[in-house]
Amino acid sequence: MRTVQFLASLWLLLHLAVCVLGGAVPGQPIEDDDDAMHPHLEQNARSSARRIKGEDTQDYWLSASKEHILEKLNYVRNTKRAKNIILFLGDGMGLATLAAARSYMGGEEKKLSFEKFPYTGLSKTYCVDKIVPDSASTSTSYLCGVKANYGTIGVNAHIKRGDCEAMADTSNHVFSVGKWAMDAGKAAGLVTTTRVTHASPSGVYAHTADREWENNAVLEEACGDLAKGLDDIAVQLIHGEVGSKLKVMLGGGRRNFMDLEFYKNGRRTDGRNLVEEFEAMSDRNTYVKNRKKLLKVNPAETDRLLGLFSKSHMHYHEEQLADPENTEPTLEEMTQKAIEMLETEENGYFLFVEGGKIDISHHDTMARIALDETAELSKAVKLARKMTSEEDTLIVVTSDHSHTFSMGGYQKRGSDIFGKAKSSGTDGKPYLALSYANGKSFDTYYNVETHERVDPMSLMSDGADAAQLFPATAPLESETHGGEDVGVFASGPWAHIFTGVYEQNTIPHMLAFAACVGDGQTACD
Amino acid sequence: MRTVQFLASLWLLLHLAVCVLGGAVPGQPIEDDDDAMHPHLEQNARSSARRIKGEDTQDYWLSASKEHILEKLNYVRNTKRAKNIILFLGDGMGLATLAAARSYMGGEEKKLSFEKFPYTGLSKTYCVDKIVPDSASTSTSYLCGVKANYGTIGVNAHIKRGDCEAMADTSNHVFSVGKWAMDAGKAAGLVTTTRVTHASPSGVYAHTADREWENNAVLEEACGDLAKGLDDIAVQLIHGEVGSKLKVMLGGGRRNFMDLEFYKNGRRTDGRNLVEEFEAMSDRNTYVKNRKKLLKVNPAETDRLLGLFSKSHMHYHEEQLADPENTEPTLEEMTQKAIEMLETEENGYFLFVEGGKIDISHHDTMARIALDETAELSKAVKLARKMTSEEDTLIVVTSDHSHTFSMGGYQKRGSDIFGKAKSSGTDGKPYLALSYANGKSFDTYYNVETHERVDPMSLMSDGADAAQLFPATAPLESETHGGEDVGVFASGPWAHIFTGVYEQNTIPHMLAFAACVGDGQTACD
Repeated sequence: MRTVQFLASLWLLLHLAVCVLGGAVPGQPIEDDDDAMHPHLEQNARSSARRIKGEDTQDYWLSASKEHILEKLNYVRNTKRAKNIILFLGDGMGLATLAAARSYMGGEEKKLSFEKFPYTGLSKTYCVDKIVPDSASTSTSYLCGVKANYGTIGVNAHIKRGDCEAMADTSNHVFSVGKWAMDAGKAAGLVTTTRVTHASPSGVYAHTADREWENNAVLEEACGDLAKGLDDIAVQLIHGEVGSKLKVMLGGGRRNFMDLEFYKNGRRTDGRNLVEEFEAMSDRNTYVKNRKKLLKVNPAETDRLLGLFSKSHMHYHEEQLADPENTEPTLEEMTQKAIEMLETEENGYFLFVEGGKIDISHHDTMARIALDETAELSKAVKLARKMTSEEDTLIVVTSDHSHTFSMGGYQKRGSDIFGKAKSSGTDGKPYLALSYANGKSFDTYYNVETHERVDPMSLMSDGADAAQLFPATAPLESETHGGEDVGVFASGPWAHIFTGVYEQNTIPHMLAFAACVGDGQTACD
Repeated sequence: MRTVQFLASLWLLLHLAVCVLGGAVPGQPIEDDDDAMHPHLEQNARSSARRIKGEDTQDYWLSASKEHILEKLNYVRNTKRAKNIILFLGDGMGLATLAAARSYMGGEEKKLSFEKFPYTGLSKTYCVDKIVPDSASTSTSYLCGVKANYGTIGVNAHIKRGDCEAMADTSNHVFSVGKWAMDAGKAAGLVTTTRVTHASPSGVYAHTADREWENNAVLEEACGDLAKGLDDIAVQLIHGEVGSKLKVMLGGGRRNFMDLEFYKNGRRTDGRNLVEEFEAMSDRNTYVKNRKKLLKVNPAETDRLLGLFSKSHMHYHEEQLADPENTEPTLEEMTQKAIEMLETEENGYFLFVEGGKIDISHHDTMARIALDETAELSKAVKLARKMTSEEDTLIVVTSDHSHTFSMGGYQKRGSDIFGKAKSSGTDGKPYLALSYANGKSFDTYYNVETHERVDPMSLMSDGADAAQLFPATAPLESETHGGEDVGVFASGPWAHIFTGVYEQNTIPHMLAFAACVGDGQTACD
């Protein structure tokens, strides 16, 4: 996180620039009293209240309601076969993250792009061995249609995490809706802001008893001699039954594809360079390692596209913005190129897109960044819906699990969502509207000298810090996931079957139903 | 809370009895290792793992998915006019409460009764002046169809909390779907576990600039001379334009209806006995004050029914269970009688039912009770759905707002949801899976002598305490609401328009549309 801390002052500068140039920052409306405010907004006059015009009248609310009802009445269920499917995943994006992101992005009255989708459902996220799951077991669930044990990917729950021997038994392997789509003649691809070998995207193509086995070194360390018969996740992406057929693979994680001799950050120890192996497979395979190259890719000249834009996970969008040397594309840009690549396919496609750093920032209790990454996902979905037709492309947006992130404190409308709650605690000190049940920030908010709770505003005295940690009740290195249901937002053919409360593993079966792929019942039966 | 603390040991005894008589408590399955367990379960052998049969196979998950898809395909949209509408409100019942309640009630794989409803939506809960709302402003929203200011009920946002003068201007009053239904010839009623004059039920019938003005004493104290032209909430229930026509009114809060001279806990100071006034209106008006009398009420002989079962809010279900002298009905029993009263109406009815003590226990960080109250609501909904037909009765279940309650910690399946998380904090002490962002429990978990975080298990050494407080990051007298969206669950005519993400105030307009009542567009147009 040193990078983030280093760049934090740049965030402040950037936002200040916006204030000077364009008045109030969109996500930070002007307040009319002394409620908590984003420090960089203090220069703005507090004269005009942040009231939405008309909210104090009946008409405003009646017409908004009328609009919703009319929209529902006019909605014609689309029961066509879905030519294309795009599954967006906001990793760790629970409902509190969505609501807080609205305030960050412009106000509670707003909606994220996918919150405008006509059908919503609730996905139950527990996995086979834990009440609160991880991103590996859930990836197996929302991509392969089967719930699994914590830490495992693309295998059923006969396999426990770390069981090298059981992993070799392919009868326990399960396949993703990406494979089902390819078996039916469609193309498939994946986009992520994490390593392409990380838990969520791996569910598209990999089978592993442990999510950590991203390169040969960790696999061999864990399995010893047994590793010989097994492939690490990076190898599965380049050479696996599913991975070797993917048309688009964009994200971070270069280090798992190359030995040290080819790349100074390489983590492989088997002398291999999987990127070269990918390029050697075909003249029409293209590898890109930066934004510039990505944007130049011509889909007409490229059969398969691999983009690895960073050594590990890609940087936070805020870091990208603040870094004049940034060479990484945004999630939106990757999504755009992926769709351009895939839309050349006559039979349609399956695309998986992950906003993976929502989860990572939440684990570090960095609420500011988590909301910004959520806004980035919203942009990518908006573009995807714009680039495709609701007639033939089903877009589903969901999350794998929530976090213990909450939004309280009764702030006045228009308050800085990262600021303090309306009242103070019984200890006389303010508390923040946003916080976590647990995480590394516990110590940040505890003064070991005075043995008192730290005034959170004292930590913000130098202005907004993108990497600021938000409070927790218990000290943990990494804040934990939350176990409540996550939202499912659907638009396009058969969107209407995505409503209700269901097990998370139902999602790929519904996608398959709509697109007439896979072994189960489909819309074409 | 003294009653709760006093009765806590009875909770333990009760549950022990269940263990002895019937094996494991349904909500507390048997564990196979040393993960956190409900203390009273320790007598059970830990030999058999809590694995749901088949969860390690593909077939289990495929057939569950198939079932959901088939259910969606076979579902015939009901576009009949809804003769009856029942709106259930779980006060403060966010998604984390629902998920944790499943574990409490029997396991993550279970669903609450209303989670089986075919359509789900997400309700945006902010009010006009605050990002996180209260139960008064939201009551105005989900009952009267207009968002309002914090603390106000049945008035639009021209009226600020506590503005006596503005309250007198009836052009700012807004009316509930209960009135719209009565105007169309239907009957209406309300049921709550709180005082019948509390924020949520008041939305059905009252108009007030302050939710606190439940009796004349508080109203007069706040408004002085201006109080003369105004009615307190209890008076509005008995004599108001809407209240005086309600067919059923069941809940707690006797104290607001009588002067001290009629009732030792009376809070009125105007010499009035509103209960007697109600009875005097008609021979066929019936007042009941306990469960026994309620169960005996014959709907054929009763035009209007008022039940006030406690001086203030009714007791927690766990307190009722543990008290041999209990005279209060359950939420399920009140719901049953209300439906029996209303189903005699040829033109149908509107019924509002609130599980109001979910919210109250959450404010006190008493997670055990909050989940038990949620289970009680689930039972009441189940009964209502059983007593009515999906053909002509629309049932919608939702919440007014969430809490800062979260469920983390990666517990093994089958762990006690009230127990500790899988790992310990970096301070070497365990932490609980359930906690709050803020609340009075902050001090409970802080040892002022050692200046260290308290081991939460040390507070549970004497066994489960129903009134146990769960941890918080900041000390507050009353834990705050949460601002994320709450779920909406719909079954019956026009249930399909309740999907999507919408403003909370859309709910009554959708109810009205389905039942062909109110001023707006309806299904009968």
